[in-house]
Amino acid sequence: MRGAPTSRSGRSGASTCSAPRPSSSRPTATPFASSRRSRSGSRRTACACWRRPAEGRRPDPRHPPAWRRPARRWDSVRDDAMSDAESPLRPLDAIFNPRAIAVVGASRSRDTIGWSIVHNLVAGEFAGAIYPVNPSATSVHSLKCYPTLSAIPDSIDLAIVVVPKHHVEAVVDEGLATGARGFVVITSGFGETSAEGKVVEQRLRDKVRAAGARLIGPNCMGVINADPAVRMNATFSPTPARWGSLGFVSQSGALGVAILNVAEALGVGISEFASMGNKADVSGNDLLMRWEDDPGTRVIAMYLESFGNPRRFAELAKRISCKKPILVVKAGRTAEGARAASSHTGALAGADVTITSILEHCGVLRADTIEDLFDTARALSRQPLPAGRRVGIVTNAGGPGIMATDACVSSGLSIAELGAGTVARLQEFLPATASFGNPVDMIASAGVEEYGRTVTAVLADPGVDAVLVVNVTPLRQNTREIFDEIARVTRGSAKPVLAVMMATEDFYEGLKEEREAPPVYRFPEQAARALAQMVRYAEWRRRQVDGEPPVWRFDEARLGRLLSRPGPDGYLDPADALEVLAAIGVPVVGFRRAADRAGALA
Amino acid sequence: MRGAPTSRSGRSGASTCSAPRPSSSRPTATPFASSRRSRSGSRRTACACWRRPAEGRRPDPRHPPAWRRPARRWDSVRDDAMSDAESPLRPLDAIFNPRAIAVVGASRSRDTIGWSIVHNLVAGEFAGAIYPVNPSATSVHSLKCYPTLSAIPDSIDLAIVVVPKHHVEAVVDEGLATGARGFVVITSGFGETSAEGKVVEQRLRDKVRAAGARLIGPNCMGVINADPAVRMNATFSPTPARWGSLGFVSQSGALGVAILNVAEALGVGISEFASMGNKADVSGNDLLMRWEDDPGTRVIAMYLESFGNPRRFAELAKRISCKKPILVVKAGRTAEGARAASSHTGALAGADVTITSILEHCGVLRADTIEDLFDTARALSRQPLPAGRRVGIVTNAGGPGIMATDACVSSGLSIAELGAGTVARLQEFLPATASFGNPVDMIASAGVEEYGRTVTAVLADPGVDAVLVVNVTPLRQNTREIFDEIARVTRGSAKPVLAVMMATEDFYEGLKEEREAPPVYRFPEQAARALAQMVRYAEWRRRQVDGEPPVWRFDEARLGRLLSRPGPDGYLDPADALEVLAAIGVPVVGFRRAADRAGALA
Repeated sequence: MRGAPTSRSGRSGASTCSAPRPSSSRPTATPFASSRRSRSGSRRTACACWRRPAEGRRPDPRHPPAWRRPARRWDSVRDDAMSDAESPLRPLDAIFNPRAIAVVGASRSRDTIGWSIVHNLVAGEFAGAIYPVNPSATSVHSLKCYPTLSAIPDSIDLAIVVVPKHHVEAVVDEGLATGARGFVVITSGFGETSAEGKVVEQRLRDKVRAAGARLIGPNCMGVINADPAVRMNATFSPTPARWGSLGFVSQSGALGVAILNVAEALGVGISEFASMGNKADVSGNDLLMRWEDDPGTRVIAMYLESFGNPRRFAELAKRISCKKPILVVKAGRTAEGARAASSHTGALAGADVTITSILEHCGVLRADTIEDLFDTARALSRQPLPAGRRVGIVTNAGGPGIMATDACVSSGLSIAELGAGTVARLQEFLPATASFGNPVDMIASAGVEEYGRTVTAVLADPGVDAVLVVNVTPLRQNTREIFDEIARVTRGSAKPVLAVMMATEDFYEGLKEEREAPPVYRFPEQAARALAQMVRYAEWRRRQVDGEPPVWRFDEARLGRLLSRPGPDGYLDPADALEVLAAIGVPVVGFRRAADRAGALA
Repeated sequence: MRGAPTSRSGRSGASTCSAPRPSSSRPTATPFASSRRSRSGSRRTACACWRRPAEGRRPDPRHPPAWRRPARRWDSVRDDAMSDAESPLRPLDAIFNPRAIAVVGASRSRDTIGWSIVHNLVAGEFAGAIYPVNPSATSVHSLKCYPTLSAIPDSIDLAIVVVPKHHVEAVVDEGLATGARGFVVITSGFGETSAEGKVVEQRLRDKVRAAGARLIGPNCMGVINADPAVRMNATFSPTPARWGSLGFVSQSGALGVAILNVAEALGVGISEFASMGNKADVSGNDLLMRWEDDPGTRVIAMYLESFGNPRRFAELAKRISCKKPILVVKAGRTAEGARAASSHTGALAGADVTITSILEHCGVLRADTIEDLFDTARALSRQPLPAGRRVGIVTNAGGPGIMATDACVSSGLSIAELGAGTVARLQEFLPATASFGNPVDMIASAGVEEYGRTVTAVLADPGVDAVLVVNVTPLRQNTREIFDEIARVTRGSAKPVLAVMMATEDFYEGLKEEREAPPVYRFPEQAARALAQMVRYAEWRRRQVDGEPPVWRFDEARLGRLLSRPGPDGYLDPADALEVLAAIGVPVVGFRRAADRAGALA
């Protein structure tokens, strides 16, 4: 019944190999894997052997490699082959880089998830083939529809499962049997609703892991790879993802929808996106490993409600934070929120203070809201890290300059003291009524030239670590010209530049395709918060290079002595308490005991 | 040269009258004053006498009334006349409710302020006549242009002045001579740049006040009256104002531009808007008085950098806060921001802690950012005040429900405990896998009906003071239907309802014409902050009704005794310090003196 029965035997051979990627299991001919980097330059090199993963990219030790699969029919893709060196294996490629996708539970009815997923794949122009599966339809969304997975004559890499919950396990079994190695289970009603559902989840996990496959979900809203060479929107989100450099994983599917809406509204680009759902198999940690060395992902963002394996998360996050920033929105910050979280996913939410300290220790930046996260991500993905917290502010209007100053100081940044040389340079071309302190208020007459020269001068000041450029232009025609000049003079700067452009909607709309210019904010507060997060991250990174902060060394003998003599009420004597602090290394101001009040005053 | 020389004598007669509005000075025939309320019902009642201001609406005691002016030529407007009773005089009507506007300094060149103002008046379809004035043009923006103010054959109520600064005084003189009683001076270069400019400002103020006229500016960006019966956009803002119920005064012109941009982006409607500039004559306090009893203005918003007359502001703000909420963004919160503010307007910025306590005392709500201000204003203008801080949360998804819970608690709200009756009612129609605590998670299957019934049940719970409705709808078609159902079932509710709809841009775009439905937010944090501000304001209002909180009564004798005996180092003995606190009424935990360590441990 399958089109390539001989290839099945290839799989069993491959599965005996313990290497992350057996050389026989998959030719280099995939048109998708890593093709963003060098697809065109390497056509027709058609080498049949696969490299092992690049040095330093370790496969998840808990799981067998993802790509133990039957050989495929390569006729149609062989001419797209890339050189071996340019297509390293990455974790979860079966899910994020498939050549063929089956949508099991595809529907002809428009207001269903089964229709929306097919529609998003088609509308997003997925670079591979889409196979709807539904026994009671012959076509879905103009695509031929198959009654079962087994009826599909070609190899399927990824199965999106949208069937009713009591059919899910059978579909996964069939998918594994027919060679699919990636599963995204959208269907809900498992561990989040019953203990019985939890058992099914565990069985699904054991089955896919045993077969070297991976599964996202159940109870999720899908995955996206926005790379123009892949263009896979396998979600039912009404808003597609714009291509960019942010890897985003959301524990909540509903919030995933909201995240994609806001990303589009703000013009934030996504590299890959995953909604995790119940995390039966793949967790946020797997995504961290996938994005760790992905050059297409500059910043990693996570919306989390719980930590499945906090110790593993901490290890990974600390290692990856040394390479690229990780931003986290952790819901359940308050006791009430944590209670709601625990009733939602059934996961036990940790005490927030513990989570905060773990995240800080690992260099993970925490954002209070999704918008804050995006604001920070835009700055981190486009601008270098600041060497310090001294901000130079350039504005063409007093009011916004004051707001920017307030916002910087409130966020923990400091207002730079401009050097005499900088001020002298500004006085050469700015009008006498300009303000030459910091903020530099060029006044309303400032045009393209004044912006260019002033930003250049302030950026060059050695006392300035970062520049915030503020603009309010009542005469709409030159907002874009001014911004383009800011982008031009700051290109390649070693110091970060953030722009606050208080403009009309059409200006922001026009910026959505920008990928390298300074990030633009509507209000100073957003820019200041983002810059403060950059400073925090840069300081953490420097601490990693300079070595860990000094470890507290306990004077254990002294400590034991002190703790062995509590006062009559069971509490330590106040002076002993101070000595305990001193014994564990906390700096304590000088103290000594006085026998009585006179002695204390002496 | 003037078209109505005989009317001049009418003015001198009128100016001897000390009543706020001499009956002979202006017929009732204005098509604009207060016409929003009853213009059509009162046509052709043409009564020639003017009422005094309504009881309780006191004219600004510092200034003579605004409308001492020559009689006009009424031929063209008499058939628009309204009955006397329906057109009470309001402060600053010459500026906000003019029948004819001259733009002095109008320009044919598109990238000038002089062109933009004429353009905005024309494009906004100002209901009266616009007279461009420019000696070197015969027409501007298709309108006949006049060489001078005196050359205009008709009466001018308001002159917008955009001429170079050394011509401003002559233009104001000419305007006063020809009968204009309102001036908006856009031109800058006065008190904000030199002491000499300050002197000119004072002279302008003295002249207009002596003539019973009023002046806004200089150094401002104009005024707006968005009332559909007036439709005056006399600014150079690229974004017009949508009509609504928010009165907005901005000290900064640049920020005024930004404010109008954001108002449009968020769909916030404005009743009237003024940019104050240097406040030579009209100040924020005058605007407060104008809007105090204006039924078209439900909420007053102010962007301030300094307080000209803090005592007067406090008096007014406290009185008006008992009628409608006042929201303030005060720039210069930080020491650095205050320094920048002081170099901007030359005004001395007060210490922020003092300002905070003044605002709190007066019931004025402070917002950190313009966006926060708009978020709160939308809630206050559309929803009743909450009776307490217990929030009921209704959601169709767990993640957003947790975020809403976190946001409410972080903002100082509390999560309501739902009554057993409410839970029983919900169990009648929600699926068993829904969550019946608070947040009520109706799960993803919830549609229009579930939203309607659940919101109704939670709103009716006596333990709930306000409801936050959260929705994430992946299937885009029913977001609007769900929102309309929420609006329907909550219409006329005595408790406030705020909606968090995580939707696509087209949904928000479609809401911009909504004026009565619950305010919609993109994220729970914004809604929670707005609701917390409502709670704060409601509590202040209740305190005004219940009487002031108890005043601290000092035990002055005891205090004097304690303060007269500092210790040898000049500090009070610790026990005395505690007694001082007790003497001024601060609750102090029980304490007593012990002579020595043994006594203390006893």
